[in-house]
Amino acid sequence: MIPFNKPHLTGKETHYIYDAVSTGKISGNGKYTKLCQEFFEKKYGFLKCLMTTSCTDALEMAAILINIEPGDEVIMPSYTFVSTSNAFILRGAVIKFADSEVGNPNLDVSKIQRLITDKTKAIVPVHYAGVACDMDAIMDLATKYNLFVVEDAAQAIDSFYTGRDGKKRALGSIGHLAAFSFHETKNIIAGEGGMLAINDPQFVQRAEIIWEKGTNRSSFFRGEVDKYGWVDMGSSFLPSEIISAFLWAQLEELDDIQARRKAIWNQYQQGLSDWGNANGIRLPEIPSYATNNAHMFYLVCNNPEVRSELIQKMKNQDIHPVFHYLSLHKSPFYAEKHHGAELAQSDRYSDCLVRLPFYYDLTDAELEGIIKALRS
Amino acid sequence: MIPFNKPHLTGKETHYIYDAVSTGKISGNGKYTKLCQEFFEKKYGFLKCLMTTSCTDALEMAAILINIEPGDEVIMPSYTFVSTSNAFILRGAVIKFADSEVGNPNLDVSKIQRLITDKTKAIVPVHYAGVACDMDAIMDLATKYNLFVVEDAAQAIDSFYTGRDGKKRALGSIGHLAAFSFHETKNIIAGEGGMLAINDPQFVQRAEIIWEKGTNRSSFFRGEVDKYGWVDMGSSFLPSEIISAFLWAQLEELDDIQARRKAIWNQYQQGLSDWGNANGIRLPEIPSYATNNAHMFYLVCNNPEVRSELIQKMKNQDIHPVFHYLSLHKSPFYAEKHHGAELAQSDRYSDCLVRLPFYYDLTDAELEGIIKALRS
Repeated sequence: MIPFNKPHLTGKETHYIYDAVSTGKISGNGKYTKLCQEFFEKKYGFLKCLMTTSCTDALEMAAILINIEPGDEVIMPSYTFVSTSNAFILRGAVIKFADSEVGNPNLDVSKIQRLITDKTKAIVPVHYAGVACDMDAIMDLATKYNLFVVEDAAQAIDSFYTGRDGKKRALGSIGHLAAFSFHETKNIIAGEGGMLAINDPQFVQRAEIIWEKGTNRSSFFRGEVDKYGWVDMGSSFLPSEIISAFLWAQLEELDDIQARRKAIWNQYQQGLSDWGNANGIRLPEIPSYATNNAHMFYLVCNNPEVRSELIQKMKNQDIHPVFHYLSLHKSPFYAEKHHGAELAQSDRYSDCLVRLPFYYDLTDAELEGIIKALRS
Repeated sequence: MIPFNKPHLTGKETHYIYDAVSTGKISGNGKYTKLCQEFFEKKYGFLKCLMTTSCTDALEMAAILINIEPGDEVIMPSYTFVSTSNAFILRGAVIKFADSEVGNPNLDVSKIQRLITDKTKAIVPVHYAGVACDMDAIMDLATKYNLFVVEDAAQAIDSFYTGRDGKKRALGSIGHLAAFSFHETKNIIAGEGGMLAINDPQFVQRAEIIWEKGTNRSSFFRGEVDKYGWVDMGSSFLPSEIISAFLWAQLEELDDIQARRKAIWNQYQQGLSDWGNANGIRLPEIPSYATNNAHMFYLVCNNPEVRSELIQKMKNQDIHPVFHYLSLHKSPFYAEKHHGAELAQSDRYSDCLVRLPFYYDLTDAELEGIIKALRS
């Protein structure tokens, strides 16, 4: 049986959990929280990182930081996870859903401008499958209309964007704020877990306060204030050291994990591209400005019936590909609140996209088996 | 060196974490999440439990469930943790802080009625040190004025209240909703972690939806709906299986942990009561309707100077007692929003209460040393 996902252990997770407990501190913001945060800051050039209990929580922090108030509008793709929008809805925002590109499920930048009003406060590009959105175009719009950009980089760790200046920047380091996920289906995992990356210096101090339940506890421990108290709204966004210790074991093996995942991705592409072309089934397209972090390998079928048949036939061989999001603008919760425009590409991905099994421990033989099963 | 707290390991935490990983699922709502939830439901008579990443998150779920809207008023003690109020402030609530009792830091029920207006939506009693608030009186007020009661039971696991009907009920099973904490300083721990207990059946279905990021995923997996989608607001409130697996190892040893903690508590009381009486230092008082879950042993000094001196003198002997909350109505964040009434008892506990070192692995000899140090 080949499932869609299997969490991968590097072997040192429980060792570091033991070590975390031996420090006498397993609540948040201890040794491993700091190790993880510094790792990400140094490796990817984020100004400041804060570990969170989920990517959802990182998005909620972002919504609080940019002061979303009831009636503020936020633009994002409809083809995304519910948390992308919930985080802003919890602050009272109105979501303006935009369509995806024809070539991949990312936000179609040409569809954004028409959604901007004087109430628009932010754009939330989602780097689907870890593939960069067209960030130069998005940042240009944000500058022109004085908007914040919050990158939903849930799937986008260790992936990059090369802008018109020729510089290669890590996804999550470009917008004012960015949110990452370490959910068990991601490249590096902690079961549930996430991180907020802060790139705009104006948010650093307040982010730490919101993260520490609205207190200036972090300033206190740095000796900047002589007692700490309640200074802002906030929540308990920081994860247990157990979670960060687990993640640390994954980070130590990041290069190995990424090398294996890229090999899997390439094997899928080499094994399926001619078959896809011959059968009207599209494989992932990586724009020239983007890198591939091998988060996911998906197929886009030419209609929903083909997808259903493909999933069913694979299941009959105990191989378990899965579809993905359902357009949020058509959901029971938001259909009546949607601005009404048809979002054809979003609906196409909802109906026709299927994700193939993808995890570190997938063997070459299993991969060959999946490819062979698809081709027949 | 005797710290204020040391997290206690039962020994099987990493074993269960390994097991959780071996199930192929370490995100939320797996085997250990269910084991923990069922344990609490059966042992304490909660209608339904949902594990959360923190007590803060459980309180936030409660605020969403009772539909707190901007301008709604919530009554709670000022002597509490910031999360008690933040959870409701994030939904736009106005907090009406009430004073504590003279005998213990719990909500003084005689001060509640005067704070009730036509905007009041909930009362949030906090069972300080795991000692029950006067729940009959609070539930009577709630019934009379049609209010919800959300028990902040962060410190109150395995503690009980005996009402006028003579029935002994677990704290957290009396209000419409209740929030528990498994932070490293609590009796049973998961580093960071919490739980929402739902006692009013009207909230069960929606709680599950909010917990699963606003989707009806739980219904889908029970076969009640044929696909799942976005049906409500929500967040990622559910913790990783790693956290629940850790907690499960603690729950298996709950009786042992509680027995040891009660022995520690009794040793403090026996060793300090005559000294307290002679020096105007008050020891915890347990009302006749309450049990003692041995969460904490605190002293209330007769003035702030005595407390400072006591803490300093103990620190000189490398023993680390700590003070606790600062009145929230005087905080930088809320002082100007406070209704203005003086809350004398809350301020007294802020100034004069000190918590003694309290953890499972504290030895009898160390306890004797602490008691001796205090008495001299």
